[in-house]
Amino acid sequence: MIHPFEDRYRTEIADIFEEQNRMLLMLNVEVALAKAHFEVGLIRKDEYLQIKEAVPKVKLEDVKNIEKKTHHDIMALVQALTDASKCDKIHIGATSYDIVDTMLGLQLKQANEIIIKDLSLLKNNLLEKTESTKNLVCIGRTHGQHALPMTYGLKFGLWSYEINECLKELEKTSFYGKMSGAVGTFASFDNLGEDGQVIQKKVLAELGLEAPLITNQIVSRLFLSRYLFNLITVACIIDKIAREIRNLQRTEIFEIAEPFKKSSQAGSSTMPHKRNPHKSENLCALTKRLRTNILPALENISLEHERDLTNSANERIIIPETVILTHYMIKQASFLINELDFFNDNISKNLHLSQNIYMEKKMMELIKEGYGRQEAYKLAKDKFEQQDPESYLGSSFRIVDKCIKELK
Amino acid sequence: MIHPFEDRYRTEIADIFEEQNRMLLMLNVEVALAKAHFEVGLIRKDEYLQIKEAVPKVKLEDVKNIEKKTHHDIMALVQALTDASKCDKIHIGATSYDIVDTMLGLQLKQANEIIIKDLSLLKNNLLEKTESTKNLVCIGRTHGQHALPMTYGLKFGLWSYEINECLKELEKTSFYGKMSGAVGTFASFDNLGEDGQVIQKKVLAELGLEAPLITNQIVSRLFLSRYLFNLITVACIIDKIAREIRNLQRTEIFEIAEPFKKSSQAGSSTMPHKRNPHKSENLCALTKRLRTNILPALENISLEHERDLTNSANERIIIPETVILTHYMIKQASFLINELDFFNDNISKNLHLSQNIYMEKKMMELIKEGYGRQEAYKLAKDKFEQQDPESYLGSSFRIVDKCIKELK
Amino acid sequence: MIHPFEDRYRTEIADIFEEQNRMLLMLNVEVALAKAHFEVGLIRKDEYLQIKEAVPKVKLEDVKNIEKKTHHDIMALVQALTDASKCDKIHIGATSYDIVDTMLGLQLKQANEIIIKDLSLLKNNLLEKTESTKNLVCIGRTHGQHALPMTYGLKFGLWSYEINECLKELEKTSFYGKMSGAVGTFASFDNLGEDGQVIQKKVLAELGLEAPLITNQIVSRLFLSRYLFNLITVACIIDKIAREIRNLQRTEIFEIAEPFKKSSQAGSSTMPHKRNPHKSENLCALTKRLRTNILPALENISLEHERDLTNSANERIIIPETVILTHYMIKQASFLINELDFFNDNISKNLHLSQNIYMEKKMMELIKEGYGRQEAYKLAKDKFEQQDPESYLGSSFRIVDKCIKELK
Amino acid sequence: MIHPFEDRYRTEIADIFEEQNRMLLMLNVEVALAKAHFEVGLIRKDEYLQIKEAVPKVKLEDVKNIEKKTHHDIMALVQALTDASKCDKIHIGATSYDIVDTMLGLQLKQANEIIIKDLSLLKNNLLEKTESTKNLVCIGRTHGQHALPMTYGLKFGLWSYEINECLKELEKTSFYGKMSGAVGTFASFDNLGEDGQVIQKKVLAELGLEAPLITNQIVSRLFLSRYLFNLITVACIIDKIAREIRNLQRTEIFEIAEPFKKSSQAGSSTMPHKRNPHKSENLCALTKRLRTNILPALENISLEHERDLTNSANERIIIPETVILTHYMIKQASFLINELDFFNDNISKNLHLSQNIYMEKKMMELIKEGYGRQEAYKLAKDKFEQQDPESYLGSSFRIVDKCIKELK
Repeated sequence: MIHPFEDRYRTEIADIFEEQNRMLLMLNVEVALAKAHFEVGLIRKDEYLQIKEAVPKVKLEDVKNIEKKTHHDIMALVQALTDASKCDKIHIGATSYDIVDTMLGLQLKQANEIIIKDLSLLKNNLLEKTESTKNLVCIGRTHGQHALPMTYGLKFGLWSYEINECLKELEKTSFYGKMSGAVGTFASFDNLGEDGQVIQKKVLAELGLEAPLITNQIVSRLFLSRYLFNLITVACIIDKIAREIRNLQRTEIFEIAEPFKKSSQAGSSTMPHKRNPHKSENLCALTKRLRTNILPALENISLEHERDLTNSANERIIIPETVILTHYMIKQASFLINELDFFNDNISKNLHLSQNIYMEKKMMELIKEGYGRQEAYKLAKDKFEQQDPESYLGSSFRIVDKCIKELK
Repeated sequence: MIHPFEDRYRTEIADIFEEQNRMLLMLNVEVALAKAHFEVGLIRKDEYLQIKEAVPKVKLEDVKNIEKKTHHDIMALVQALTDASKCDKIHIGATSYDIVDTMLGLQLKQANEIIIKDLSLLKNNLLEKTESTKNLVCIGRTHGQHALPMTYGLKFGLWSYEINECLKELEKTSFYGKMSGAVGTFASFDNLGEDGQVIQKKVLAELGLEAPLITNQIVSRLFLSRYLFNLITVACIIDKIAREIRNLQRTEIFEIAEPFKKSSQAGSSTMPHKRNPHKSENLCALTKRLRTNILPALENISLEHERDLTNSANERIIIPETVILTHYMIKQASFLINELDFFNDNISKNLHLSQNIYMEKKMMELIKEGYGRQEAYKLAKDKFEQQDPESYLGSSFRIVDKCIKELK
Repeated sequence: MIHPFEDRYRTEIADIFEEQNRMLLMLNVEVALAKAHFEVGLIRKDEYLQIKEAVPKVKLEDVKNIEKKTHHDIMALVQALTDASKCDKIHIGATSYDIVDTMLGLQLKQANEIIIKDLSLLKNNLLEKTESTKNLVCIGRTHGQHALPMTYGLKFGLWSYEINECLKELEKTSFYGKMSGAVGTFASFDNLGEDGQVIQKKVLAELGLEAPLITNQIVSRLFLSRYLFNLITVACIIDKIAREIRNLQRTEIFEIAEPFKKSSQAGSSTMPHKRNPHKSENLCALTKRLRTNILPALENISLEHERDLTNSANERIIIPETVILTHYMIKQASFLINELDFFNDNISKNLHLSQNIYMEKKMMELIKEGYGRQEAYKLAKDKFEQQDPESYLGSSFRIVDKCIKELK
Repeated sequence: MIHPFEDRYRTEIADIFEEQNRMLLMLNVEVALAKAHFEVGLIRKDEYLQIKEAVPKVKLEDVKNIEKKTHHDIMALVQALTDASKCDKIHIGATSYDIVDTMLGLQLKQANEIIIKDLSLLKNNLLEKTESTKNLVCIGRTHGQHALPMTYGLKFGLWSYEINECLKELEKTSFYGKMSGAVGTFASFDNLGEDGQVIQKKVLAELGLEAPLITNQIVSRLFLSRYLFNLITVACIIDKIAREIRNLQRTEIFEIAEPFKKSSQAGSSTMPHKRNPHKSENLCALTKRLRTNILPALENISLEHERDLTNSANERIIIPETVILTHYMIKQASFLINELDFFNDNISKNLHLSQNIYMEKKMMELIKEGYGRQEAYKLAKDKFEQQDPESYLGSSFRIVDKCIKELK
């Protein structure tokens, strides 16, 4: 195995994309179709039950063996289910992509449940850190330069807010399937005397998916591109957090640091003293990969006529990769946030490094004393004195409290 | 001028990004801030009114001249407004990016109103075409190959649906500003004895923008990346439409064609007979550019500490480019859809080209007669006869009617 | 296994990226280093030989077991080789990335040999087709519209030329390693009394790699980005070929078609008559993925200070993916070109479809008769007659002959 | 004007892409074609001279006015030249893209001369800094952590090397044109009784361009994608330099800093004390944009049949943008390197910050004393003492000298 999501960066979410789960979900779609056919009277109840009960008997190996002969994966699946159920009333009226695209909807729905659970955990970890550091005063930096005092609570609060914004989008995602036939006309169902739209509605309701208003052979890739985009924005927020850890762990700054087990972990082979932010660097490295996954997804929106296959091979890559690596990043980020070391002496030392940052407050005081803005600026530029950093924190504590209250 | 959005592909939306409008919007932000200061009692009513009434007197040229000396655009703006109003109570407590990012929120809000108006027009044009072609039977194609009969109404209906899905996202966009000071603590407002969060709320409400729960020096770029993504998906749907026009206009297919004015338009310089789908090709060409604009937007999410400036120069490019070119594409697509030529003889000729496509129906009939699915497949493969294409249309008409009803 | 390059799109080149080969190549680097140490007198000949002969005894499993304890892959490797050789003079003076980056150079060199071999085969297949179709007259198309007659030989000749241009770049690639220590100073070698630059030169010469003029901890990613770019351009040319096959296989055009085994291959499950260009669509789908791999490669050029690790995790993905999938595409393209079906009746039918394309020749004749260009254009626009297409082929045959001669 | 390359980031190279220069270069192509026609005897010498001498008389305004009527830019150009020369023997046998693509070759050739000149300057500035800092010892950093001592000369030497590698690629670029007619058959020339390949050879030789072995309607976009890639790698190296400046200018590190004119430059509006690395941040911001420009360039390789127009609109953007912004970045980088401030006290302070970094040397000494590598590692981990950093510099000085010698 070569791709690191198979092993090194794998999480439990990866199982969703294994052949075994794909097969099971496709069988579920076939059973839901058989149930719909039974409900509208095309097949008998005992036929439907025969099909339903045969599902556990279908083995991936058997399907693969049939596929070797027929060179068609869905027809192999249908054959295997036919063999197992001894009933030939399977897949009636459906085209391959009715099964495949509906299965994809189910995969993404399964994945999203896990993502949401662990992203909520990350949000909660961030909120806890927001609360525990809300009085931890530090220097704020813009352009890599000391700017004005703030608190660590504000940093964690902002990340909590951003992660929560991503979470809200993921929670309201609709997942789609289809059962509309080869070009979206439902003709094969209608020609059986059924109402295709009723069949589609029943199948998708049974599976917990939504029906697009209209399709061609496949569900519009607009929806998939949006879902992948929303996952990628999660990675981008984690990248931001990881980059901040890396910067604040720099030797000269060293305010916070990734957890580091002295006993079991070797540093560099020639420089054993080093404490590298490897996990954060890893998250930044993965983000570079994930960002680009939106491009094939956007290109796939524009397939020709009622569909071509120029989405298929790249979706086999970008869908599992985006889901698995984003999930891995969420879990790693949760761990990092939970186990982060704080070096309060360094935080305080850095805070007092730039006396002149307090000049701004002087300028504001001069304005209150009645000076015009331009005049106060000039006065403050020449004359100011050191002040207690905490007097520069403005509403910091209240913002953080509000943030915790709203996001919990 | 070199970039084609300055001229060749320019629309009226481009004015939003001209210096003149930028300046005006920033002045509006300063006035809204002065108003908030007046309402909480920091400055007097006559001072606020002096500032407000000075706005029309500020000339872009003057601001530019001051900037040449001070090398700081916002301080130049403040100076120019101070000069014009003879009042020095401007910009109090604000940092440059309070003004700049709030101005950006206003620009995007202005742009979105125009985009929504013209995207609604495109949707309506597509719906009209959906209605007028709902009985126009044609061959459906998958993988570039004839598949099964359908109607043109289904094609236009699907595009209407996709454009409407994009429209819905754009309509629910929130646009943000901020007035939280240099690192998001509101300290400069609070140090004046004001409540910074109240000031921010008043300013943004006055301007019709929303306040983020928490910020650092700038508004999180998460929101900007989402907005640009939503615009780009519009371009991707238009790319899909344009590609379909190009394919259906091919010499051998020639079912539809872009409008073509014989009198005024020259064809190729050596091949004057050609009728090239230039406008559609142009739309596909622009989409290749627009898709990539999401990448800097995603990279900009991850700025360092309380902000760095590595978003600024590329946002000067990707924001106007994405807005202007998407708007240009929407208007071009509307024109194309409205003026599209249909060649019914060719539509009919192509429809009857592949007799064997009717085999599917035969298979379904055999299933109804009691044959098992596998058996029917084999029978149909050997024996089938030509049928009336319209009998293969399934629910086509009903889907289209439903689509029109729901999207109107 | 989830990623399709593990199985579905795997070729023999994938073995290069398996753990087993990685380990073997890194052991080779350690042996080359020991040899250099021996040659400059730091270690004894018997020590070097002991190390060299221990290589086959090192088992991947053992290295993995040590890594579980030490959490450092290179130190685990060194320990395993130390255990197997019973000699502790291994890895002296080297930093981990001396081994890792040199191993990467070896992997890419191995890969490039296979790529070049199979790309040469593809070129030859294209040249054969160029020769065999040099008299096969067909219509040339621009903008999807019939333009002027040409030959299939010209199409294949152009692709041969483009593939050959890619091949030339790949053949002149330099592959790099390094042995310059933790920050590129060679200090750890020099401090042993050796001349580090001599050690590096010896090691890399032994391994058939080149030495960069200067490095920090790693070899500049500029070189890697170029190599991946060159592979991606191969994919882009194949995409162009595949797209042409798809377009020329359209039902209405059907001049050429992918090979299709009637006996074993099922068509669509509902439309068994179809002959879809699945392999070509697959190649276009993969290209969408591969193009984006250049972006992380370009981002990785800019690591911080003497290196950070934000390249590592994404290089584990983009390097094997680009190499394996490009190689898969080359082999698939070779197969397609070799087995392509030609339908000469359709080629001829399409060629005669657009009588008016012969107008251009008329215009040229009028110019020769003495008419001015503008005048001839107007005359030809109204009056022209059908001509033998072959009289429009110009130098087609000679270009093709020249092309074959130069590229063979 | 909205796009910042029109003004804010414009350099003199931008003039190449103005309409005026485009027109002039296209007229040059038409003149070169007329000369070739004269040399093979199709037109008379006086006709050729008439055409040649008319070039200065053609006004852009006139061409634009004709284009408004004819809607075809090349035919408008031909008409304007015909009017100015009173000779109708212009553009004979050529198709529009013979002129347009050859003009593009000329634009890129002009641009490349300027790029090479200024990139050589940047290389020389880097080499000068390499020389002047070759004894400036500093701490080397990996993963943002102190690693081992090195010199500033090594940093500048590596950048000199990387810029020189880019320069070498740019210097060996071939620029192409074509004169092969509508589908690459030369038919329109051959039908005039000329040998089209001779005409093409003469035209391109006259203009200093190369001829592709074979073309369709346009020159293969493979070559353009490579040239843009090479420019983008220049931007990526500059991004690396700029990022290093930003990191080394951080308040806590502050070893070097961008030039800063206290008198004329305002800092932040609320924090006048700050010294922000604005120019370096600007370079990093532009790189995010430039990297993505390779994607449309790669997509454009795969046009349909003998060409479509889906490259044209995006090339109007990505070509000037990549050329102009890369050139701007080169000039900005040269300025930054030349004017960089060094703070030697901070360099020294940081160098002595991490005593434990000297442990590595201890380990090497222990190995020389006869300890095995693993044993020495353990001893050094517990016991080591501070040493003079210069003793850790290894071959640093010699590498830098070699680098200067080879690159000058």
